[in-house]
Amino acid sequence: MKIRIKTALISVSDKSQLNYILKPLKKYNVKIISSGGTYKHIKKLGFKCTEVSEYTKFPEILDGRVKTLHPKIHSGILSIKKNKKHKKQMKLLKFETIDLVIVNFYPFKKSVELGNKHEKTIENIDIGGPAMVRAAAKNYENTAVVTNVGQYEKFYKEITKYKGSISGSFRRLLAEEAFLDTAYYDASISKYFTDLSNNKFPSKKVIFGEKKENLRYGENPHQKAAFYYYGSEELCKLSGKQLSYNNYNDLYSAISISNSFPKNVGTVIVKHSNPCGVSIEKNKIKSLRQAMKCDPISAFGGIVVCNFKIDKKIAIELNKIFLEIVVGKGISNDALQILKRKKNLRIIDSSNLKLKEVNDYVKNFDGFLLQSPDYDSFSKKNFQVVSTRKPNKKIFDNLIFAFNVCRFVKSNAIVITKNFSTIGIGSGQSSRVDSCDIAVNKMKRFELDRGEDEICAASDAFFPFTDGLEKLSVAGVTAVIQPSGSIKDRDIINLANKLNLILIFSKTRHFKH
Amino acid sequence: MKIRIKTALISVSDKSQLNYILKPLKKYNVKIISSGGTYKHIKKLGFKCTEVSEYTKFPEILDGRVKTLHPKIHSGILSIKKNKKHKKQMKLLKFETIDLVIVNFYPFKKSVELGNKHEKTIENIDIGGPAMVRAAAKNYENTAVVTNVGQYEKFYKEITKYKGSISGSFRRLLAEEAFLDTAYYDASISKYFTDLSNNKFPSKKVIFGEKKENLRYGENPHQKAAFYYYGSEELCKLSGKQLSYNNYNDLYSAISISNSFPKNVGTVIVKHSNPCGVSIEKNKIKSLRQAMKCDPISAFGGIVVCNFKIDKKIAIELNKIFLEIVVGKGISNDALQILKRKKNLRIIDSSNLKLKEVNDYVKNFDGFLLQSPDYDSFSKKNFQVVSTRKPNKKIFDNLIFAFNVCRFVKSNAIVITKNFSTIGIGSGQSSRVDSCDIAVNKMKRFELDRGEDEICAASDAFFPFTDGLEKLSVAGVTAVIQPSGSIKDRDIINLANKLNLILIFSKTRHFKH
Repeated sequence: MKIRIKTALISVSDKSQLNYILKPLKKYNVKIISSGGTYKHIKKLGFKCTEVSEYTKFPEILDGRVKTLHPKIHSGILSIKKNKKHKKQMKLLKFETIDLVIVNFYPFKKSVELGNKHEKTIENIDIGGPAMVRAAAKNYENTAVVTNVGQYEKFYKEITKYKGSISGSFRRLLAEEAFLDTAYYDASISKYFTDLSNNKFPSKKVIFGEKKENLRYGENPHQKAAFYYYGSEELCKLSGKQLSYNNYNDLYSAISISNSFPKNVGTVIVKHSNPCGVSIEKNKIKSLRQAMKCDPISAFGGIVVCNFKIDKKIAIELNKIFLEIVVGKGISNDALQILKRKKNLRIIDSSNLKLKEVNDYVKNFDGFLLQSPDYDSFSKKNFQVVSTRKPNKKIFDNLIFAFNVCRFVKSNAIVITKNFSTIGIGSGQSSRVDSCDIAVNKMKRFELDRGEDEICAASDAFFPFTDGLEKLSVAGVTAVIQPSGSIKDRDIINLANKLNLILIFSKTRHFKH
Repeated sequence: MKIRIKTALISVSDKSQLNYILKPLKKYNVKIISSGGTYKHIKKLGFKCTEVSEYTKFPEILDGRVKTLHPKIHSGILSIKKNKKHKKQMKLLKFETIDLVIVNFYPFKKSVELGNKHEKTIENIDIGGPAMVRAAAKNYENTAVVTNVGQYEKFYKEITKYKGSISGSFRRLLAEEAFLDTAYYDASISKYFTDLSNNKFPSKKVIFGEKKENLRYGENPHQKAAFYYYGSEELCKLSGKQLSYNNYNDLYSAISISNSFPKNVGTVIVKHSNPCGVSIEKNKIKSLRQAMKCDPISAFGGIVVCNFKIDKKIAIELNKIFLEIVVGKGISNDALQILKRKKNLRIIDSSNLKLKEVNDYVKNFDGFLLQSPDYDSFSKKNFQVVSTRKPNKKIFDNLIFAFNVCRFVKSNAIVITKNFSTIGIGSGQSSRVDSCDIAVNKMKRFELDRGEDEICAASDAFFPFTDGLEKLSVAGVTAVIQPSGSIKDRDIINLANKLNLILIFSKTRHFKH
C-alpha cells in the first residue's frame, strides 16, 4: 500500500546532496522537521523547516545528546495509521504522524580511523539517530526511512513516480537497508570496544564488511560472489582485468607469505592458494628466477608477489610467461609500461598494504570457527638440534626459511629448499609420506643444477613413522626441521643419526587446511 | 572512578533471576523505575518500584511502543555528572540521573526460530530497549548497563564489593558487552529481512555468532580458538573428548559430502579436510569397508561419517581402527556401547542436523569473500557425452558419483572410482597432472581385487593438456568426466576416442580451495 508523505524528519551527519533530496519534498508539500546543523543547512539552502525543539516544545539539551528522544517524535514514527486506538491516542496528545525519516549517523568509524581521542570517538556514538531509524524501519508499513546518501536517487525516483507517495515494497526495501546500517554501525562500535580491551574471543562475535564489489563469479562460474571489506582500500590495482574470487583468495595466500619475509627481499608464486615457488635470494632477479624454477609448470597462470619494487629488468623477466597477477612493493614507471603490454595481466602495487593482525575465521555449519592467526615470526631458541650432526648458521637459517614457507602450504606439507629457495613442495595430502613423495618428485623433475649447497626440508607436523625421513634422505636431503611429538620421535632421531642427517625439532606445529 | 547507584531503570523481557538482582539494589536503597510487565513482576516479588509513566508524567501509549522514549529517561541516562551545564539543565527541568539500566530485549531471534508470523516477529523488534542500552553504554563513564541475565552474578559481586557503587573498569566492560548485544540483535534483524527478500549479497554484510565454546586451541596448539554459532545446536555428541578446531573443520567437510549422498546410503572418511575414502554402496557394512579400502593409511585417525544409522555390526567394524570421530544418522544402543569402549572416540549423532543453504565465506585481508555454496545436485542433462563410445546407465551413474566426490576434494582434484566407491583420490596440487599421478598411485597401492567393474575418473576442472587423460587411461581408467573449456578440448576428445575411453563434458567446474 502506498502512503502519502506529509511530514518528514531530517537529521543527517553527511549533508551532501541534501538539496537534491529536499526538492521533491518541497514539490509535494512535505512538512520538514529538523534540528541542529541539519536545520541550519536546510534553511541556508532556502527550504522551510521547523526545529525539533519547536515541534516538541522541549529544549535541545545536554550539548545535543537529547534532541529527538521525545514521545512526540517517536509516536509520530511508530504509530500505526489504521489502528483506531493509536489514532485516538495521537489525537488526544495532539501528535502527528511522521511519514518519512531521513537520518544518517555520526561518523563513528571515520572517527576511529582518524585516530581521534577516545572521548571524541565516544561522542561520535549516535544515540538519537539509530533510535529513530530503528523505529521507522520497524514501522515500515507506515513510515519510510532513508539512511544513506546512496539511496537518494532511488528515493527521488520513487516519490516522483508516485507524486508524493511511497510504495510498500520500497518502504520494505528501505527498512531492510536501515537494519543493515544499524547492525553495521553497532558492529563497528563493538569492534572498537573489544579492540580496546583486547578481547579477541568475545561472548558474541560480529564480523562485518561493506561490499566493495560484486565479483564476476565465485570459486566457480555457477557460484555468485562478492568481496566485502572493512577499513580502507590498501591494494592499488594499476592495470588489468577485474580481480576474480580465486584471484583474491590466492592473493591473500601469496601476500601472507611475502609478508613473512625479510624487508624488501624475496619472491613468492602461488597457484590454487598453495605456494609453488618461493625464494628469498637477496638479488632480485635471481630471487624471481629461483622461485620460477621450483615448479615452472605450476607457475604458469600463477600469481607472483615481489616483496620489493619491480624495476624494468624484473618486468622483462615477468613478461616471459603467462601470469594472472603481478604484485610489487612499488612498480617503476618503465616496468609498468612493459607489464602493461599484457592487456589482461592484473598489476598491483602493495606499497600501502598493512596486513593487520586480524583473526582467522572459517565458516562451519551454521556458525564459524575463529582463531588467532599463525603469523608470529620464529625465534631460533625455540628450535632444538636433536641430531649428533650440528647445523652451521647457513643451514640453520635455510631450515628456518623452509619451515616458514611450510606453514603456508596446505597440510600435510613438506617443503624442500636449497640456498633460500624452494626446490620441491608437497601439499594437501592426507598422508605425510605422500607429501614427501610429491616434494621429492617435484625436486627431481625441475632441479637441474644449483651448485653444491645442502638440501634442507621442513615438515609442518611431526613424522609419525620413519619412512618420510628416509625418503627425503634417499633423495639427497641432508637437514630436516619438524615439530616433535610422535611416539616414534626416538626412532626418528636414531635414523637421522644413522643417515648422518641434521635434525631439528621445533616446538610448534603448523597445520593449515 | 566509582559511581554510586541511586536510581535504576529496569525493563526486561527475560524475567528470570530478577529477584536475585533486586536484592542488592534494595539493600543499597536504589530507587527503581520500571514499566509494563517488568513493573508488575517487581511488585509481585515484593519490591518497591515507580512506574515509568508516573516518573515521566507521560502515559504509555501505542500498545507499549512508546514508553521510555522520553527526554526525562534519556537525559537521566545520558547526562554527564561532572558537567556543570548538564547539571544546571537537569536541575532546571527537575530531571534526575539514572545510574543503572538493566534492560534485555524482546526475543526477536526466538520469534523467528519459532516460525511466528511476520507481523508478530516485527512486533518483537525492540525499539525502546536498545535506545536505552546504547545511551547507557555510550555514557558508561556515568551509567552502568546490564543487558543479559548472564551478567547478574558478576554485577551482584561488584555492587556488594563496593557497597552500592560500581567501578569504572566494570562499567566499561558492561558497555563493551552492551554493544556486542545490540550489534548481535540488529544483525539478527537484518538477516531476517535479507532472508525474506532473498538478498544474498547486501550492500553491507554482518556475519554473527554466539560463542558456543572456547576450543582447547586452534589449528595448532599455539593458536587460540573458539566456535561460534547462530541458531540451535544440531549435532549431538554422545561420548568422547571435546571437539577440537580441526575436528570441527573436518566434520564440516565430511558432513557436506555425506549430505550430498542419496538418503541413508554411503560412508565418507575425511582426513585433513579432504576425503580419503568414499562409497555409496547400498549395503552398509560393504560401504564402510569400501571407503576404508580406498586409503587405509590415511583413514587412520580420520573422521568417519555414516549416512545411515550405526548398528552393532558397523560399530564392531569401526572399532577395528583408530578414529577421531564417528558420526551416524542415529546410533543404536548396542552400537553405542561398543563404540564407547574407545574412551577418546568422539561419537556424534547427526539425526537432527539440517545443513542449511548458508553462504560460503573466507577471510581475506581486512575483509572477506562471500559466495553462494556449491551444493546443487547434478542433473544428467548437464552432462554431454563427447566420445564415440557411450556409457551405459551404470557407468554414467558412477561418473556422476565420482564427479560429486571430486567437488569436495581440494583443487586440483582427481577422483578415481569403481562401483560407487573411490579407489584413488589426488588432491591439493597446483598442477593437474600431479593430481592424476597421486590418484593413480593411491589406486595401485590399495586396489587389490574388486572384480571386473569399469574404472571411472573425475576431474574438478578441465585437463589443460592430454597428458592427464593419458596417465589415467594407462592406469586402467575407461571412463572420464571433466568440465570442458580448454583450448585443447578437441585434442582431448580425439585422444579419448583413440584410447576407446568414454568421455563426458560437464557444464560446471568445481574448484574448492
